[in-house]
Amino acid sequence: MSEDLNSIKNHYELAIVGCGPAGMAAALNAKIRKRDFILLGSEFCSPKLSKAPHIENWLGFPEIGGEELRQRFLEHLKKREISIMSFRVNNIYPGPPFTIMGKDKSLEADAVILATGVSANKLFPGESELLGKGVGYCVTCDGPLYKNKNVAIVSYSKEGEDEANFMADICAKVYYIPYYSDALRLDHRIEVKKSNVKGIVGTQNVERLDLGEEQLTVDGVFIIREILPAEQLISGLDMEEGAIKVNHKLETSISGLFAAGDCTGQPYQLIKAAGEGGTAALQAVKYLDNLKST
Amino acid sequence: MSEDLNSIKNHYELAIVGCGPAGMAAALNAKIRKRDFILLGSEFCSPKLSKAPHIENWLGFPEIGGEELRQRFLEHLKKREISIMSFRVNNIYPGPPFTIMGKDKSLEADAVILATGVSANKLFPGESELLGKGVGYCVTCDGPLYKNKNVAIVSYSKEGEDEANFMADICAKVYYIPYYSDALRLDHRIEVKKSNVKGIVGTQNVERLDLGEEQLTVDGVFIIREILPAEQLISGLDMEEGAIKVNHKLETSISGLFAAGDCTGQPYQLIKAAGEGGTAALQAVKYLDNLKST
Repeated sequence: MSEDLNSIKNHYELAIVGCGPAGMAAALNAKIRKRDFILLGSEFCSPKLSKAPHIENWLGFPEIGGEELRQRFLEHLKKREISIMSFRVNNIYPGPPFTIMGKDKSLEADAVILATGVSANKLFPGESELLGKGVGYCVTCDGPLYKNKNVAIVSYSKEGEDEANFMADICAKVYYIPYYSDALRLDHRIEVKKSNVKGIVGTQNVERLDLGEEQLTVDGVFIIREILPAEQLISGLDMEEGAIKVNHKLETSISGLFAAGDCTGQPYQLIKAAGEGGTAALQAVKYLDNLKST
Repeated sequence: MSEDLNSIKNHYELAIVGCGPAGMAAALNAKIRKRDFILLGSEFCSPKLSKAPHIENWLGFPEIGGEELRQRFLEHLKKREISIMSFRVNNIYPGPPFTIMGKDKSLEADAVILATGVSANKLFPGESELLGKGVGYCVTCDGPLYKNKNVAIVSYSKEGEDEANFMADICAKVYYIPYYSDALRLDHRIEVKKSNVKGIVGTQNVERLDLGEEQLTVDGVFIIREILPAEQLISGLDMEEGAIKVNHKLETSISGLFAAGDCTGQPYQLIKAAGEGGTAALQAVKYLDNLKST
């Protein structure tokens, strides 16, 4: 699906940054609306989706596998002749037109949709290797798989407490490792460990969480991270609780710049991401129409 | 799928009003999160989806038929043992707990998600101004107030016929204005007017129903719609451009009340509705958790 960098034009009406569910849903609507757009992604779109064993809440398709769904998404794009350009965006200069800087190439776009997902830049040792094998990021999605088992929830924000409380009803044992200092509101059955994670350990699947002075025997580890500050990508972008601040129309603080999916904050769910992507594209189309008529 | 009214409990943590894609997606997440909730819908969920020949942007399933998708949605709910209660909501009183009034039954819920879609029918001139001053939606509730008086019943469905027959025993005069074409089964004392309503007129209270070529002198006007306009359902709800005003978290102007899908405004798209439903459910869960811990 990926195309040659040389085929990139200098200017587009719309650039969609990110090829996860939000970016793909945005591209689909941009295509249906016959817009001149480019979908900038990575070589492998949505590894997170790919590693999800079962998606329980993609309405109409109960317990579909993450990789199967991902393939169907890619097929859908192919069928509509939407290609994904492998292009890592390093910087965006405000517009219109916005200037999107890559490593070896730049391009202009009158409107931009950020669908960059949540960053997993500081991975724990073992996290990448055991992703989908006991390591997960979405408790609502995968939680039920850990019925009567032991899990650890490593959280960079208070959001993790809701997730832990949810798991306390399901699991034999829930450990909670907070990477923040606020007071905790946790179910009494949850055991708090105020330690640093040294690594996630296991051969086939997660076996234990290494806290240095202590080893926790667990079947699953969920990691709830703050989002990579997207204001590093474009200056002047308002953030809220570590996510790109958007209104209900998915408009950011910068006119012509929209955001959709995990990068706009929790919940980190497929259906939320896809819905926002679809909406952002239509709002961008409206913005482009207004731009032309002024 | 529809269940007996008698099975309705007095109290739920969460009530979801509407069984289109937004309501269904919300129910799915509420179920996954093991919440005590009820899904209030109609006999036939999402006629709009049913009538769509092809859905082009349900990511991963190109050109799927609307009715096929609808059936898959219903199957998904069935598989998760989520039932849809056929229950027309006439009124909601703010909470917590919110009180949800139906025709013969009421219930309480700590949080509510409105997923009522868009009403194809606009409000009549005067309807909003005279609500509670002669204009009503629930004949069983308010009917007895109109003993020996004159009322008009404007109905978009056959359901209105039962209401009219009930009123024929009470009132001096009952007019019936059907906005549908089926054969009528009405008490002989009821006078049918096959006209369009131009407006409801009155200073303090309802005085007459304006049918253009004819003026009916009435004390009360009941309007029986499949979907009630959201701003009429609950007082104090902020609206914007004819839709329920929500923020990115799908919170309305009333704490504990969320909204999702077409009722929150354009774009009227399936994927937007489902995404918002899923998100609203998780935000409601968060709200319920905070409610408990305070």
